[in-house]
Amino acid sequence: MTELYGGVETGGTWCVCALGYGPDQIVAEQQFPTSAPAPTLARIAQFFEQYPGAAAIGIGSFGPVDLDLASPTWGHVTTTPKPGWQHVAVAGVIRDRLRVPVVFETDVSAAAVGEHRWGAGQGVTALCYLTVGTGIGGGLLFEGRPWHGLVHPEVGHLRVPHDRLRDPFEGSCSVHGDCWEGLASGHAIAERWRLAPEGLPSDHPAWELEAEYLALGILSIVMIASPQRVILGGGVMEQAPLLAMIRSRLRGLVAGYLETPLLGEGIDSYLVSPALGDRAGVLGAIALAREAVVFSPRGGAIT
Amino acid sequence: MTELYGGVETGGTWCVCALGYGPDQIVAEQQFPTSAPAPTLARIAQFFEQYPGAAAIGIGSFGPVDLDLASPTWGHVTTTPKPGWQHVAVAGVIRDRLRVPVVFETDVSAAAVGEHRWGAGQGVTALCYLTVGTGIGGGLLFEGRPWHGLVHPEVGHLRVPHDRLRDPFEGSCSVHGDCWEGLASGHAIAERWRLAPEGLPSDHPAWELEAEYLALGILSIVMIASPQRVILGGGVMEQAPLLAMIRSRLRGLVAGYLETPLLGEGIDSYLVSPALGDRAGVLGAIALAREAVVFSPRGGAIT
Repeated sequence: MTELYGGVETGGTWCVCALGYGPDQIVAEQQFPTSAPAPTLARIAQFFEQYPGAAAIGIGSFGPVDLDLASPTWGHVTTTPKPGWQHVAVAGVIRDRLRVPVVFETDVSAAAVGEHRWGAGQGVTALCYLTVGTGIGGGLLFEGRPWHGLVHPEVGHLRVPHDRLRDPFEGSCSVHGDCWEGLASGHAIAERWRLAPEGLPSDHPAWELEAEYLALGILSIVMIASPQRVILGGGVMEQAPLLAMIRSRLRGLVAGYLETPLLGEGIDSYLVSPALGDRAGVLGAIALAREAVVFSPRGGAIT
Repeated sequence: MTELYGGVETGGTWCVCALGYGPDQIVAEQQFPTSAPAPTLARIAQFFEQYPGAAAIGIGSFGPVDLDLASPTWGHVTTTPKPGWQHVAVAGVIRDRLRVPVVFETDVSAAAVGEHRWGAGQGVTALCYLTVGTGIGGGLLFEGRPWHGLVHPEVGHLRVPHDRLRDPFEGSCSVHGDCWEGLASGHAIAERWRLAPEGLPSDHPAWELEAEYLALGILSIVMIASPQRVILGGGVMEQAPLLAMIRSRLRGLVAGYLETPLLGEGIDSYLVSPALGDRAGVLGAIALAREAVVFSPRGGAIT
């Protein structure tokens, strides 16, 4: 067995911990609900005490998070709407308890890294990974590295056209109301139709509206970041006809403006499902830990 | 005098050519209207025949353009709505006539480079330059290099919320109708109010609507690309109160969600005017030419 690395995905709903080296070399893996911060972080630490040996641990966390290595609040979750999780130190607590180097990223950037190394984003220079679940999140990679700017992408909180005659729903985002996430997340679907997404039949009008909103948000990503591929994961995407409906609508919205078959007849290979499914985040976190130790990219990823 | 480089900005309305080394070292500069492709390209070539000596020429062109160095249509304008300019070879024609290396970029990425090297974007790792003129365009730089993905940013064609009760105008984009550019470009303002932007008094309701649309589009850029600074240029921005109105509205839209003073009380240093004014594009083109020769970044910028 090669050297071992830890991966943690702290999602809005579930936490996943794993110890291993890659998708086919996992020694231990555990999933549990994301509860309050203290018991959640304790449970993560217990996992790595029970399965020791990680040379470094990568953490992909729901956000917004502080990724600035020079900041006193590096490794914190910051202004999240998730109750109890505002201003919670995640990375430092794990590092100090386990005394192991920690690499900290957003959950969606970690998933993007996982798909880039082993999944549906292999060889793609400019890659976007989106997840549509309880919320909407997205990560961008350029040459395999997560994109950081002022903070990091928070795509769920952009605005898309909202036709209130067609859809009088006010939106479910506690901060912005009818932002993209407020209109198109799983939470928004459940509030609007008073039925969980998995309970809506595939011919329900909910799906046409959902495809419209998702295509509109993806259009903004295409026009701004111009990714070469968009991977679209998350629980809401498990509805069988949804991906095809979004592809068709996105193609209609672009309307031939950009001269590339990938936004026309080739859209099926542009807007794709994750290859690693639910495991993209935790595997990407392992990749981040592993590469930080091996390559120490940009000289500062390990603290 | 140091070595000389050429810069060309082919904008939707005006072309600018210059020969020099930097903002304070310009030997010759000329501006003329962008007419049909053949006479426009001939006039550019004549400029560099009249003022010879450029070791390389940078061209920043209105788009969409083909920036893929491996593509047979590298250096072409592709699907632009600008009459007569669809599928026009720009870079290759200049290179072949003048027998000099040519670096080809979008006009807005060239302007971003100019502002990054000598203007309002100095030292900014993740920079966005936007122009609101006849159309809306934007370029992104990371560590000073223009961002290329599937194509390049075409931010004018994302969608923003359009409240048809408040603004029944259908939008002016010939391809998308009420995309961002279709609602908020100078062309859209002129069509909606039947008055050119420069003819609208500063207390006209046009400006509040304009600030709303511009803030909504910039919000999408903030949430997707997370730039550390946004430079906002172009003729429409010359209306004195507009920048302050956009700053205020953008701050309201973010609503404290991202924990950074730059999107709150510090927004005046986040959303800023260009320092180089109209010259950002042509100076950035000179920088691209100069750096391609000096550093040959990524081994392929010169063809």
